[in-house]
Amino acid sequence: MARISIIGTGNMGQTLSSRFAQGGHAVESFGSSDGDKPVTGDIVVLAVPYPALAGIVAERGEQLAGKVVVDLTNPVDFQTFDSLTVPADSSAAAELATALPSSAVLKAFNTTFAGTLASGTVGEDPTTVLIAGDDARAKETLAQVVTSSGLRAIDAGALKRARELEALGFLQISLAAAEKVSWTGGFAVIS
Amino acid sequence: MARISIIGTGNMGQTLSSRFAQGGHAVESFGSSDGDKPVTGDIVVLAVPYPALAGIVAERGEQLAGKVVVDLTNPVDFQTFDSLTVPADSSAAAELATALPSSAVLKAFNTTFAGTLASGTVGEDPTTVLIAGDDARAKETLAQVVTSSGLRAIDAGALKRARELEALGFLQISLAAAEKVSWTGGFAVIS
Repeated sequence: MARISIIGTGNMGQTLSSRFAQGGHAVESFGSSDGDKPVTGDIVVLAVPYPALAGIVAERGEQLAGKVVVDLTNPVDFQTFDSLTVPADSSAAAELATALPSSAVLKAFNTTFAGTLASGTVGEDPTTVLIAGDDARAKETLAQVVTSSGLRAIDAGALKRARELEALGFLQISLAAAEKVSWTGGFAVIS
Repeated sequence: MARISIIGTGNMGQTLSSRFAQGGHAVESFGSSDGDKPVTGDIVVLAVPYPALAGIVAERGEQLAGKVVVDLTNPVDFQTFDSLTVPADSSAAAELATALPSSAVLKAFNTTFAGTLASGTVGEDPTTVLIAGDDARAKETLAQVVTSSGLRAIDAGALKRARELEALGFLQISLAAAEKVSWTGGFAVIS
């Protein structure tokens, strides 16, 4: 059983909270009015939109030291819907890792719509969580949480791969927004 | 029936040639010794590795004017396997479009392994060809070729999206190389 803190009570936060609880993990959730409540989990999922990351770093940076911190953001420019807002050779996760040098930052859950995390399937295929990060033990810990919660997990490589995961997340969102795929579909990972 | 020229007789070139012929299209293939033979198709697929594009542009640039030119390359740095060789804010397709201003350059087939183009399936799911480009009519022409040849096609947006398609292609290759997915699997697109 892992102790997991989820910051953010939106669609993704609620869905992951239910999933992990089903998997037998101890989950605590943090809404926007819980700024004074310290996180106690060993894994902290930042289930917030990309622009909210900086505020969390400022507010909770010290609390996050020594913890596995999971970034699920897709830093899409929702004004133009035509690019990401992070530098082309970087990623939201890479920026977060720089801002949190004492945390093990992982990229995960940004290529899985909330609907597919809730259902456990993408169409007829099992939902697969792609995890990128530089700390092998942290990735293994998160992968165990994911699989014990009824989803598949694949190690997608170093944190540098977050750039490709965010490109995939952006592409998937743009296809769904254009009604080329549904919000319960998208990219399934076939072994 | 479309007239299609395929430059390159490797795995991808052969597979696409068979597919399109099955779809009733007129296909002509060009190997490395066919430099003097002009292309006559309305659609020209450059089924070559990324480093070969520059030579084709130099050799056949004028022949390609007015045609639909399809780039399927994944410009992966195969020395390090850790990045793409094109600038982070660009793509192989964008470079090709700049080099061929009189052609309608499309990105397609770079997110589908040859095995999935041959079988028509990714696992249990139909193989889906993601097509990006700035010429709507060219995309529609290619989409019709793809669907008449027994595959699914999705318009993935403007040529700018080639950047994300190449990121997806790179990620998929890296997962297959690491044996996380098989070369007959990878990303399926679920509507």
